[in-house]
Amino acid sequence: MSEGQSKDPLILFMPSGKRGRFPVGTPVLEAARSLGVYVESVCGGRATCGRCQIEVQEGNFAKHKIVSSTDHISPVGPKEKRYAEVRTIPEGRRLSCSAQILGDLVIDVPQDTVVNAQVIRKAATDRTFDRNPAIQLCYVEVDEPDMHKPLGDLDRLNVMLEKDWGWHNILVAQHLLPDVQKILRKGNWGVTAAIHRDLEGSRPNLIALWPGLHNEAYGIACDIGSTTIAMHLVSLLSGRVIASSGASNPQIRFGEDLMSRVSYVMMNPDGREAMTKAVRQAINELTVKVCAEAGVDPNSILDAVFVANPIMHHLFLGIDPTELGQAPFALAVSGAVHTWSREIDLAINHGARVYCLPCIAGHVGADAAGATLSEGPHRQDRMMLLVDVGTNAEIVLGNRQHTVAASSPTGPAFEGAEISCGQRAAPGAIERVRIDAQTLEPRFKVIGVDQWSDEEGFAEAAEKTGITGICGSAIIEVVAEMYLSGVISADGVVDGSLTAKSPRILENGRTFSYLLHDGAQKITVTQNDVRAIQLAKAALYAGIKLLMEKQGVKTVDTIRFAGAFGSFIDPKYAMVLGLIPDCDLSEVKAVGNAAGTGALMALLNRDYRREIEETVRRIEKIETALEPHFQQLFIDAMALPNKVDPFPKLAAAVTLPERKLLADGEGEGGGRRRRRSRE
Amino acid sequence: MSEGQSKDPLILFMPSGKRGRFPVGTPVLEAARSLGVYVESVCGGRATCGRCQIEVQEGNFAKHKIVSSTDHISPVGPKEKRYAEVRTIPEGRRLSCSAQILGDLVIDVPQDTVVNAQVIRKAATDRTFDRNPAIQLCYVEVDEPDMHKPLGDLDRLNVMLEKDWGWHNILVAQHLLPDVQKILRKGNWGVTAAIHRDLEGSRPNLIALWPGLHNEAYGIACDIGSTTIAMHLVSLLSGRVIASSGASNPQIRFGEDLMSRVSYVMMNPDGREAMTKAVRQAINELTVKVCAEAGVDPNSILDAVFVANPIMHHLFLGIDPTELGQAPFALAVSGAVHTWSREIDLAINHGARVYCLPCIAGHVGADAAGATLSEGPHRQDRMMLLVDVGTNAEIVLGNRQHTVAASSPTGPAFEGAEISCGQRAAPGAIERVRIDAQTLEPRFKVIGVDQWSDEEGFAEAAEKTGITGICGSAIIEVVAEMYLSGVISADGVVDGSLTAKSPRILENGRTFSYLLHDGAQKITVTQNDVRAIQLAKAALYAGIKLLMEKQGVKTVDTIRFAGAFGSFIDPKYAMVLGLIPDCDLSEVKAVGNAAGTGALMALLNRDYRREIEETVRRIEKIETALEPHFQQLFIDAMALPNKVDPFPKLAAAVTLPERKLLADGEGEGGGRRRRRSRE
Repeated sequence: MSEGQSKDPLILFMPSGKRGRFPVGTPVLEAARSLGVYVESVCGGRATCGRCQIEVQEGNFAKHKIVSSTDHISPVGPKEKRYAEVRTIPEGRRLSCSAQILGDLVIDVPQDTVVNAQVIRKAATDRTFDRNPAIQLCYVEVDEPDMHKPLGDLDRLNVMLEKDWGWHNILVAQHLLPDVQKILRKGNWGVTAAIHRDLEGSRPNLIALWPGLHNEAYGIACDIGSTTIAMHLVSLLSGRVIASSGASNPQIRFGEDLMSRVSYVMMNPDGREAMTKAVRQAINELTVKVCAEAGVDPNSILDAVFVANPIMHHLFLGIDPTELGQAPFALAVSGAVHTWSREIDLAINHGARVYCLPCIAGHVGADAAGATLSEGPHRQDRMMLLVDVGTNAEIVLGNRQHTVAASSPTGPAFEGAEISCGQRAAPGAIERVRIDAQTLEPRFKVIGVDQWSDEEGFAEAAEKTGITGICGSAIIEVVAEMYLSGVISADGVVDGSLTAKSPRILENGRTFSYLLHDGAQKITVTQNDVRAIQLAKAALYAGIKLLMEKQGVKTVDTIRFAGAFGSFIDPKYAMVLGLIPDCDLSEVKAVGNAAGTGALMALLNRDYRREIEETVRRIEKIETALEPHFQQLFIDAMALPNKVDPFPKLAAAVTLPERKLLADGEGEGGGRRRRRSRE
Repeated sequence: MSEGQSKDPLILFMPSGKRGRFPVGTPVLEAARSLGVYVESVCGGRATCGRCQIEVQEGNFAKHKIVSSTDHISPVGPKEKRYAEVRTIPEGRRLSCSAQILGDLVIDVPQDTVVNAQVIRKAATDRTFDRNPAIQLCYVEVDEPDMHKPLGDLDRLNVMLEKDWGWHNILVAQHLLPDVQKILRKGNWGVTAAIHRDLEGSRPNLIALWPGLHNEAYGIACDIGSTTIAMHLVSLLSGRVIASSGASNPQIRFGEDLMSRVSYVMMNPDGREAMTKAVRQAINELTVKVCAEAGVDPNSILDAVFVANPIMHHLFLGIDPTELGQAPFALAVSGAVHTWSREIDLAINHGARVYCLPCIAGHVGADAAGATLSEGPHRQDRMMLLVDVGTNAEIVLGNRQHTVAASSPTGPAFEGAEISCGQRAAPGAIERVRIDAQTLEPRFKVIGVDQWSDEEGFAEAAEKTGITGICGSAIIEVVAEMYLSGVISADGVVDGSLTAKSPRILENGRTFSYLLHDGAQKITVTQNDVRAIQLAKAALYAGIKLLMEKQGVKTVDTIRFAGAFGSFIDPKYAMVLGLIPDCDLSEVKAVGNAAGTGALMALLNRDYRREIEETVRRIEKIETALEPHFQQLFIDAMALPNKVDPFPKLAAAVTLPERKLLADGEGEGGGRRRRRSRE
């Protein structure tokens, strides 16, 4: 519809901003469709599903040269009236299938149209996404059988799906054949078909069928982590997340970390099968859980999107991950996987489709792809660093021009696994730490206790929880505070000379430790603890630095911490320790389960699937193990915050200590001398 | 390649007749491909599969202006030599992937290239069909994994399938994901992929994968009859039928005829499931049987094509056939069905595809579509009548312009079911009958006995078999001979006045019968037997006549009898009885299991699938029950051969008796008077 037909009214759709001229009398829904504005509709313009609600914006929109008024839309007709009598239409809303254009209009397409009463427990994200789901519900009224034109019932259904909805060459899922006649008769020839279409050029699939108007369809977006499986249940018609939940990955019983699970597969003939079964069962149980929470039948789930690290991805799909445990870390499949729920034993609708995001590389999985899709380094001009810290850190760095990715073997220290007093984040765990640089006395906060340790009432409150250890986020904080207060040197050595100054510095043979709490349990940070953190953060930073070198940048513009780890640590302390490069602190943000958000986006909009597939194809993959320079970057990154890299922005925000170097066990200044002797 | 580039050699491919000019040095295979000439190749030009054999025709082909000579093709090179050393190439054959064009050539593409020694037990048909199977085997050599380019193993396989074979956007069957890495490594990165592509515009599917060169693929073509299931096992690479076999349909235990099976489903809650299971199991057992006969692993069957009558079609696909048992006889699905072997529990390759031909109407099934495809009324100018006689006769009449189809309820009389001395075709059954018109004495032939009953040695030989009844084909013959000899009148009444003339005419109360054999068992043809045949043939003829009226023709040009019934009856006697309209007797042909041949064609060439789908869409379907005129045609057809239709061509070949009418039981000439009294 060209704007040149100046007699026709001008219609502007918000928030998309798409506009066009349409003849008087055009239904608003038709105008939206022809401009490619996504407006849901199940009933196909019969004013019975209520999905196609819009709102007229009144006023003079000078910028757009539109005077928009409710007078410029047709009054509520009998069909719309009937719908409003049965269901409720919010004040100001109209059904766009019935409302016709009479004059210039600014039309708002609301993002929150919900026609079924659903309890929204939790917003997975504040963002709203353009929608274009792979599943579409289409109500049709099928001709009754006619001996003179003996087309099959299904064939007449397909005729209507083509006539009313434009679906050509539909492929019908085999499992529907036995039911189609009963459903058509039960619906008195009115049925709702679920059509799946993902890639352009592939034939649409008829995957589910209900008698009458079926006005809701659901999807799940799931992130399969090594430790935790997280799931969103989403209404595909409203775009709303209606329940979110998590569960432990039961594969933990086969091995805590990924590599021990690969070993389990290699050692046990049925190991792969057992782990595949375990993870699928956990997903099915989690599906039951989110469905119960939302009052939804798992059978109404028609689409499922998964992200996972490469080993979880393979085990979930039934693939032996052995090759991922050894160089060259060959993925069985790196591209996006399209399959059917029943092929992988998911207890959702028998015709439901499954989409797995692509993996980036052998150690950079579909979860990193999901996080990339969510945070979008490739969608912006600034240089964005995206870090997902786990046993392997997955690192993505890039902008609109170019994106690079790598993984770095940080080990389990950040998760508290190799820390003497490390523990899970649970009541009794220390979660925040401050150390007075003058007295070296600490104060801290314990999970389950409101007060800081130096506040009134702390001791009483802490009696209930106990003070049992240090959780992952506090490990970062305490080591950083030890550095800021001078307890450890820039090369990470606990300064033994401070024993004279403070009873907090304890001697343990040839090394020293810091006494964080002296109670029922002594909680100390040992030299080995500091070393473990240094090794982990050096691996992470060296990986980041390698990518920065590949990109030819000295600094990054913005940093995103994905995953649970990032949600709990203070960016300042992460930077003080030199986990991440120097950056404006306000530009370091924790984004939670970005991988899961990416899965959600791919569930709500198949354009995002194409976007991430294309992005992953273009991402330059760096294998840190193959980069000779990596060793040097690693050694430099052992220092706090870094031996060679300046942190001017951090220094402006935080008072960094004077650079002090101490020998570690093997003699004073050894670190420095060893480096020099090699030069 | 335009013929205008007159310097380039001119190549003519036979038998297709396709021609074009190609530069000197072009491999013959490449020239064939670019002209759309089907030449098989699995190895992709590596001269290892031996599938692409061609033969140079020597001589001056004046009509084509080509002087073709073996000097115009490159000499045998090292690769081709190596192949010939390992396998055998027949004298005069060349591998077209290696042989290059040096000058003008006439190239013969042989239809019998078989590289594996296969015992061909039985030719399903003498015809050879242009091949374009839905399955293609493609050997590729895949790049080894590379940490710098971490594409998955499967993704690199797909890259090669696109590069070497032009397959875009391959969809990989889920069940292959777990195996792909092992297969690639076992084949040392050389693998053979089976690609399924059927409809244009749908994505190719990777359905099977083998390490190294896998040089054979099989398919089955199967006709699921109510009584018998017939199957061909075919090499998809050579196009040869390598085994054919049949089995009883085990559903017989649920009901002899189709309608009793529908009743069984309606009466028994698990009836549909039990029958589906039974027929699938029978197909699986038959598959094992044909595979054992040919020494083929059922797992190497990659494609399967089925035809069946509508009720068998539905039960096979797991669809409740109840709707087919009552007006309006609604098919659940009439169009072609595409599915996967595992979706319908076939014990062939897990990734094998299944194709069912479309059904024409509620009583005219995919078997009739198969027969139509085989005999091709729609491919010729003459008016062809195609009849498949069973409990329901399926009738197709047409030519290139227009085709009409109907079914007619002939009942089971033709199969001997309602005949007093009827029996299955087995040793001891009378299969041929002649009656002397002067003496009314019969002579006959018995299955299992070489001599006719009036020949020397018959009595001795018949002692072994006994003389036990009349089989289906002989029913037609004996009733026709009774008519020709004057035993019965034109209205089908056994002439009681003949008791005076011959002891063969027996009185049974108010009617008479004919004594065919007086031995241990008396074998007679009763008045009721004649009536049953009259009713059956009248139904068939009335259906045919209805279609002739729809076509506006008084005669048909050629007649095809499909099915077992047609193979055993003598066309002359069928016409004497008036089963079929008058026609030159040399134009009445039995074509055996044409439905199965149609399935075979659809298996070997997916173009035939499109052809029959399009043909079925265009066929005009006639529901005899809705045609008011049908009753009159039926009544006219009760007479022998017909009350109103002349049979001039038959009369020229056979001496027909004087027209004689007799009352049947209720008084002399009653039949005629009754008709008149209504006029």
